[in-house]
Amino acid sequence: MIERVKVAVVGVGNNTSALVQGIEYYRRTGSLVGICREEIDGLGVGDIEFVAAFATSPGKIGKDLTEAIFLPPNNFPRLDGRLPPAGVPVTEGLVDKSGIDRVAGALADADVVLYSAPSGRPVIARAYAEAARRAGAAFVNTTSDTVARDPECLARFVDSGVPLIGDDLASQFGTSVLHDALLRLLAARGISLVSSYQVNLGGTEDFRNLVANPNTKKQSKLNALSDADKVEMAPLGYLPHLNSQKVAHLNLEAQGWAGTAVSIDVKLKVHDPSGAAGVNVDLVRIAASAKRGSRGGYATEATPLLKSPPGSAI
Amino acid sequence: MIERVKVAVVGVGNNTSALVQGIEYYRRTGSLVGICREEIDGLGVGDIEFVAAFATSPGKIGKDLTEAIFLPPNNFPRLDGRLPPAGVPVTEGLVDKSGIDRVAGALADADVVLYSAPSGRPVIARAYAEAARRAGAAFVNTTSDTVARDPECLARFVDSGVPLIGDDLASQFGTSVLHDALLRLLAARGISLVSSYQVNLGGTEDFRNLVANPNTKKQSKLNALSDADKVEMAPLGYLPHLNSQKVAHLNLEAQGWAGTAVSIDVKLKVHDPSGAAGVNVDLVRIAASAKRGSRGGYATEATPLLKSPPGSAI
Amino acid sequence: MIERVKVAVVGVGNNTSALVQGIEYYRRTGSLVGICREEIDGLGVGDIEFVAAFATSPGKIGKDLTEAIFLPPNNFPRLDGRLPPAGVPVTEGLVDKSGIDRVAGALADADVVLYSAPSGRPVIARAYAEAARRAGAAFVNTTSDTVARDPECLARFVDSGVPLIGDDLASQFGTSVLHDALLRLLAARGISLVSSYQVNLGGTEDFRNLVANPNTKKQSKLNALSDADKVEMAPLGYLPHLNSQKVAHLNLEAQGWAGTAVSIDVKLKVHDPSGAAGVNVDLVRIAASAKRGSRGGYATEATPLLKSPPGSAI
Amino acid sequence: MIERVKVAVVGVGNNTSALVQGIEYYRRTGSLVGICREEIDGLGVGDIEFVAAFATSPGKIGKDLTEAIFLPPNNFPRLDGRLPPAGVPVTEGLVDKSGIDRVAGALADADVVLYSAPSGRPVIARAYAEAARRAGAAFVNTTSDTVARDPECLARFVDSGVPLIGDDLASQFGTSVLHDALLRLLAARGISLVSSYQVNLGGTEDFRNLVANPNTKKQSKLNALSDADKVEMAPLGYLPHLNSQKVAHLNLEAQGWAGTAVSIDVKLKVHDPSGAAGVNVDLVRIAASAKRGSRGGYATEATPLLKSPPGSAI
Repeated sequence: MIERVKVAVVGVGNNTSALVQGIEYYRRTGSLVGICREEIDGLGVGDIEFVAAFATSPGKIGKDLTEAIFLPPNNFPRLDGRLPPAGVPVTEGLVDKSGIDRVAGALADADVVLYSAPSGRPVIARAYAEAARRAGAAFVNTTSDTVARDPECLARFVDSGVPLIGDDLASQFGTSVLHDALLRLLAARGISLVSSYQVNLGGTEDFRNLVANPNTKKQSKLNALSDADKVEMAPLGYLPHLNSQKVAHLNLEAQGWAGTAVSIDVKLKVHDPSGAAGVNVDLVRIAASAKRGSRGGYATEATPLLKSPPGSAI
Repeated sequence: MIERVKVAVVGVGNNTSALVQGIEYYRRTGSLVGICREEIDGLGVGDIEFVAAFATSPGKIGKDLTEAIFLPPNNFPRLDGRLPPAGVPVTEGLVDKSGIDRVAGALADADVVLYSAPSGRPVIARAYAEAARRAGAAFVNTTSDTVARDPECLARFVDSGVPLIGDDLASQFGTSVLHDALLRLLAARGISLVSSYQVNLGGTEDFRNLVANPNTKKQSKLNALSDADKVEMAPLGYLPHLNSQKVAHLNLEAQGWAGTAVSIDVKLKVHDPSGAAGVNVDLVRIAASAKRGSRGGYATEATPLLKSPPGSAI
Repeated sequence: MIERVKVAVVGVGNNTSALVQGIEYYRRTGSLVGICREEIDGLGVGDIEFVAAFATSPGKIGKDLTEAIFLPPNNFPRLDGRLPPAGVPVTEGLVDKSGIDRVAGALADADVVLYSAPSGRPVIARAYAEAARRAGAAFVNTTSDTVARDPECLARFVDSGVPLIGDDLASQFGTSVLHDALLRLLAARGISLVSSYQVNLGGTEDFRNLVANPNTKKQSKLNALSDADKVEMAPLGYLPHLNSQKVAHLNLEAQGWAGTAVSIDVKLKVHDPSGAAGVNVDLVRIAASAKRGSRGGYATEATPLLKSPPGSAI
Repeated sequence: MIERVKVAVVGVGNNTSALVQGIEYYRRTGSLVGICREEIDGLGVGDIEFVAAFATSPGKIGKDLTEAIFLPPNNFPRLDGRLPPAGVPVTEGLVDKSGIDRVAGALADADVVLYSAPSGRPVIARAYAEAARRAGAAFVNTTSDTVARDPECLARFVDSGVPLIGDDLASQFGTSVLHDALLRLLAARGISLVSSYQVNLGGTEDFRNLVANPNTKKQSKLNALSDADKVEMAPLGYLPHLNSQKVAHLNLEAQGWAGTAVSIDVKLKVHDPSGAAGVNVDLVRIAASAKRGSRGGYATEATPLLKSPPGSAI
């Protein structure tokens, strides 16, 4: 019989809410809707269980994981259906490198640590990675902070025989995926792009943070596109009423035969945290599979799911 | 030095207008905008010249090809820039099988016959094919009439060592291409389609004919899509003011992680005749290349550009 | 204290489903969302109650009204919240003029008869009107069948001192309302319309019927618009998966200063039966108020809510 | 015979380009497309002529007005058709209050001074106003700088019997006009707004300046809307490839009967400078009419065309 994957999650934001609720949804319904891979190394979506959770927000600490995921500023919707308590109280997370051993102790049970805190605190990210390594748990970094693409850090995981996956998850389906697909489709058919724009609007805390620090994100979004020199990115718009929905408007103006106009306008609506959860559920299973196989270091099968795997610019 | 490809065109409608004007546009500008393949067997777009043209509309007969393409009901726009006379008067076309020898005689100079008349008259289509075969000119059937996928007809071309390409051109870029790409993209990312619709609006004579006979077209459009059982086609709308523009509205409603909604709305605007011309320019060059190489029968490299190549249902 | 309005409803389709569920929704929540007029002559939305219901579909007859509204082909959604039984069994309706007295007897308790059956059976519509008149109940014709604009019929109601309201309700908010507002806005600002189109897609039984008989509807839709000679209507599209939702795509191409382009594209999504219920709730209250005031014949305050009030072409 | 209106224009940007080209367009074609009022006090659009022009950009000074309007950063398109030279060289404009008398001298011939420089330099705006007053020419302030709503300034014009019109032109047709019309339409039909957003994208120098100073503009845009507390404004997007086009995406989510969803999505494309020119042509004629009638001070018939007429907050 298959053992369940025991996951410790760092960060109790929208992405964790989507993951925790979704796993229960799939377990209860048996549905495969929205699932890319039914099984990875024999592991189904419902085989994931949570054994620890870390957060720094005082309101969340001490609450059961299944309660904490609904506290503000989280705004991913409450899915229909009962959500039984996880039996996992949220524990106080790291604010500097001083608590690594405490956290490592709390990870004794965990197969995988899913690092899902806000981006932008690389020292903390690496501190959790170190705690995971000491505890022998595979580490998955879903943020853009440099962990797996840091050669020294990766070397330590290799030496310890512990898996390390990251950095920066690529959403299952979002603006970049769609925009890039359209740009490539035009190119494949011999249609010449003239100009294109992308507008992104969202209402999550994550979005609010990105709006405050727009340039990195804009460049990273352009990096995800082919023919990017003809694409213009409008500034990100933080619109609180959208809650966890993301809305994108895309326009592509192009020329076909003899320069005649081809014009495409798109509106996309998705739930940002769903796009993360759909990928996290694969990253966690890949990490678990690597751990079972005693494959230390980076698991290359994760590469299509990441924006900055080892070897990317730091 | 490369010889030009000498083309006889049957049908002087919008598609021929786009092709004739476009070839002059590319010759004059040297542009490669909207071109899929710069050269095919050394043949550039500007290496195509017209040596004969057939039509049945009394108003067009006797006019120079470059004048006849602007007569009603044609409504493809007049492109900027000078269009020198082709020196090719439009000749009376076939209305039954009686004039095959006359047409064969008029094809003495032609390397390729491009059959671009309205679909729906298979007897006429095959009569032109026979004339081409007798004259030793490669035949390209861009209509949905059964010619190349008729085994007897194909066998005659094989026996005569004359190339035959068809049937039914697949537009360079249109609603089906875009809709299918989006359906495949969702599937590839594990997003589950719930429902989808497609609305097509256009203002050409071709569109008016399709509206009068909608069911075949609806089915053929569904055939072009993956996941077609969840796609609903609105009736075609003939809106004269659109002229040669086609407008499509696509909607895809899907479910991602835990059933959360993914929604895509698209508006596409293209010139229908441009989509035909962009493919015809490749079919003509493939046919010319096959003729040069003395390859009789079907030229398999045309398959990606056709909806019903030999072997398709008749 | 205000007496409730006692309503008999003819037709147990989507519009009746929206009305019955909605009245309970407003009674329970006290909400005023989506309500144009909180009170009419002192009557609130929650003051309406149902005392009789007629239908011809065998599956619906005998069921409580609150059950029958969910039977196929009805597809208006089940609103959240409890819907207590109405205590009103659906009664067999008229199929010709023979049962007028039976129906009149069943209307003894009713203040108002709301005629909400499918359009296209004027003899039946007038038979119900006659039954209402005999019973002394105000009659509201929401269909396009000729009842109130039939001078003889209206005269009988005037003579009997019974109110008669109709014909053909104007939806609270739909494609015509929005399209016309945009056309008028352009005109008011001096922007010259060049062309416009309207696409309507829906999934109700009503829509299916209209698709089968499109020309009347197309003309009636054009009648609702200013600047209609420049507007083209795409054929109605019956897309079953839309259920009771209606989707419209509008485009307006215009010219402003010195002929420079102004372009507007709109997508509208509404629930068709909601647009009917929002008006029916006013028509019923206007009828009740006229009855209380012993005002026989047509109640002119209903005119803004009707497409064909008395005096319209028959 | 009607005398022409002699106009001196301050600022040779996109708005002036649209005005100068457009007047010639209407004179040549006799068209009334895009014109709100054919005549104002007997004055047609073609009765406007330019007699002086002021700018500070060294590249524009000395050039004929009809040349200078095409110099960068101007990017309003060159309209089809011949544009005869105006015979008006662009003169060096004011950079402080020192040149008022020089400018007043150059205005000897002018009936109206149209102040169309970038907003944000109120001292310069009032210096030009003073020059106009001394020359006896009516002054029209199209910028948001405080001129006509400055009581002292207005009093001087009243005392001198010279007309003064301003401040801040309201575009003939733009995002605010359309968004507000939709919000009012929903309210009029009893549909309850839940949320709404507005995205504005443009490629003019004007847009680039607004992006750098977004908050004032955002508030001013909200001021133009009813139900503004439920409307969220995305940050303005400066997308150079749009040139003088403005693109807006509007969304309105609302609730109709029983809270069922009503959803409207709009894409609007306009030329920003056209929206200004279409109003400037009326403001200039109103000013000329007031001058002819010797009506000093503010001309109240201009109020519907202004955002901040006298009496507005300063």
